[in-house]
Amino acid sequence: MKVKAAVAYESGKPLSIETVQLEGPSAGEVMVEIKASGVCHTDAYTLSGTDPEGLFPAILGHEGAGIVVEVGEGVTSVKPGDHVIPLYTPECRQCEYCLSFKTNLCQAIRATQGRGVMPNGTSRFSIDKQMIHHYMGTSTFSNYTVLPEIAVAKIREDAPFDKVCYIGCGVTTGVGAVINTAKVEPGANVVVFGLGGIGLNVIQGARMVGANMIVGVDINPSKKALAEKFGMTHFVNPKEVEGDLVAYLVDLTKGGADYSFECIGNVNVMRQALECCHKGWGVSVIIGVAGAGEEIRTRPFQLVTGRIWKGSAFGGARGRTDVPKIVDWYMQGKINIDDLITHVMPIEQINDAFELMHKGESIRSVVTFD
Amino acid sequence: MKVKAAVAYESGKPLSIETVQLEGPSAGEVMVEIKASGVCHTDAYTLSGTDPEGLFPAILGHEGAGIVVEVGEGVTSVKPGDHVIPLYTPECRQCEYCLSFKTNLCQAIRATQGRGVMPNGTSRFSIDKQMIHHYMGTSTFSNYTVLPEIAVAKIREDAPFDKVCYIGCGVTTGVGAVINTAKVEPGANVVVFGLGGIGLNVIQGARMVGANMIVGVDINPSKKALAEKFGMTHFVNPKEVEGDLVAYLVDLTKGGADYSFECIGNVNVMRQALECCHKGWGVSVIIGVAGAGEEIRTRPFQLVTGRIWKGSAFGGARGRTDVPKIVDWYMQGKINIDDLITHVMPIEQINDAFELMHKGESIRSVVTFD
Repeated sequence: MKVKAAVAYESGKPLSIETVQLEGPSAGEVMVEIKASGVCHTDAYTLSGTDPEGLFPAILGHEGAGIVVEVGEGVTSVKPGDHVIPLYTPECRQCEYCLSFKTNLCQAIRATQGRGVMPNGTSRFSIDKQMIHHYMGTSTFSNYTVLPEIAVAKIREDAPFDKVCYIGCGVTTGVGAVINTAKVEPGANVVVFGLGGIGLNVIQGARMVGANMIVGVDINPSKKALAEKFGMTHFVNPKEVEGDLVAYLVDLTKGGADYSFECIGNVNVMRQALECCHKGWGVSVIIGVAGAGEEIRTRPFQLVTGRIWKGSAFGGARGRTDVPKIVDWYMQGKINIDDLITHVMPIEQINDAFELMHKGESIRSVVTFD
Repeated sequence: MKVKAAVAYESGKPLSIETVQLEGPSAGEVMVEIKASGVCHTDAYTLSGTDPEGLFPAILGHEGAGIVVEVGEGVTSVKPGDHVIPLYTPECRQCEYCLSFKTNLCQAIRATQGRGVMPNGTSRFSIDKQMIHHYMGTSTFSNYTVLPEIAVAKIREDAPFDKVCYIGCGVTTGVGAVINTAKVEPGANVVVFGLGGIGLNVIQGARMVGANMIVGVDINPSKKALAEKFGMTHFVNPKEVEGDLVAYLVDLTKGGADYSFECIGNVNVMRQALECCHKGWGVSVIIGVAGAGEEIRTRPFQLVTGRIWKGSAFGGARGRTDVPKIVDWYMQGKINIDDLITHVMPIEQINDAFELMHKGESIRSVVTFD
């Protein structure tokens, strides 16, 4: 069938709205009508050409929501009409990783997903018989897309697509890092480095689970007001701190953070995030993505005296299991998404969404299809 | 009273057997007749002068066992005649750290212990009215020593002093890192870097909890036979591996170590230990002590993809609670100490014990008092 998609023909160039041929779902796959999709830094990272695994031409987008319109042979967990969120981290519930119950990094379709194709090794997208790559197994910058059954989370039907699409990446990454990766407990003191979209979601996750101090650290003071609305209790601008930031944060939290989160992707900040943790038990979680080849470092004494260094991908969430719960939390008012979606625009204006991101004028832009 | 002790007058010099004046226990303190004491690398490190916190003159030794001979005012948990192991990591059960139940790093007497004195700020040791420092709060290279009540673990009376003294440091550090810090579960694959005393205790801890593969890594092939006796299932000599050691270990363990332990103190090995861990859930524990100022490093991607980096001090053991249990395990034959104690000698020959250590001829030497 013919679908409308924003195609990334080559790195560094704007996306182009095209009519694309989409094949129907093969066995174990579903076709989803995408109703809305967030535009994320990861899309911009790949489009920029600095992602060493980026493939072109491709249909980007990994933060969508929509309705199942057709299912392939053998699909049993969803049916046409079901509302779903595509998952760039699938949940097969069969592989060694899923069955370990220690990680969300399902490996069932990782190899083909990384090559921009479906599990059988081919793409469902083409233009004039030229293959267009899938992206992150999702390709949500298209009004219809095809996904493996294990890569869709079924959600309630009263949830608005142009809000809950953000749960497909940013919300879950932040809230999930608090709940699944760090397992922050009530009364804990939390320090969050970087008050962009991920940092704000970490903050509201920490508030939801009953954290005590929620310290936000950002060099941009204009982030303060919104972060406070999301639950930040203390704001620290490193530019205004005299002396060592780590010592300042340890003092502020009366011994150090019980949990810290790096939401920037800066290896020097990752070190500060670890070292501001409380001796004996502080846990630091890396969420941000560092530049290729960059390294974190610290003295091993930091770990021997009880700090723990870990990381989080997709908030440690098992998508099919956890994403529907987060949708419920949004619908119940436990988490705020509305204030994070600063811009909504039709897919035709998707390049504006990237521009708003680069200028720092948006938290999250969402594109819609009609 | 007059006691016999090996005194470290200055760094780099042999210990000197002296008659030392020991004051009786103040309130909250106990006097212990030391029956045996292991000689550990940490004692050698301080004696060498490279320990930036080393103080002289001092009575070294932190791996002892003995009998309570006198208790100060208010002491209730032990009485004269009780057999005990001194604890360089005390367990007050009152401080924020003890009550967190997240760490064993009791801070109750840390400041004074670091200054080589008892909690009231003075030393109990002197020679001709010249103050001699306590060391690690224990000073077990003396036939009598004074300790805070919170720094003695009461043990069963049928346990031989010249064996269970090793539980005061090395055994607990290794076995405890497996049980308390890593929490290795049955069936896990474990990689141990360094097959000295600590590494061997990690290996027998892993065997005790039912680990599957227990891979030992050491550049010295002469370590293989004893490590196998302790439970090692696979030996890897990095000098004999062609290509990348990490890739070799990941392949050998079919995906990576569920748990790895660094028992050397080499920051490059610490990186290998982390990176040979299984994607998604591998936990790497640093036990070895690196040189001053040295740093560990890795790409943050290692953590974001699910590996966890942590450290362990005194095996994460709460001494008064856990040390008596390890003594029981030894008496029940669950762990082997006898084969690790390669030399026993009277305190008068303690300098020979250091020499055996430096030549690599001993695993553990124990000095006795009579």
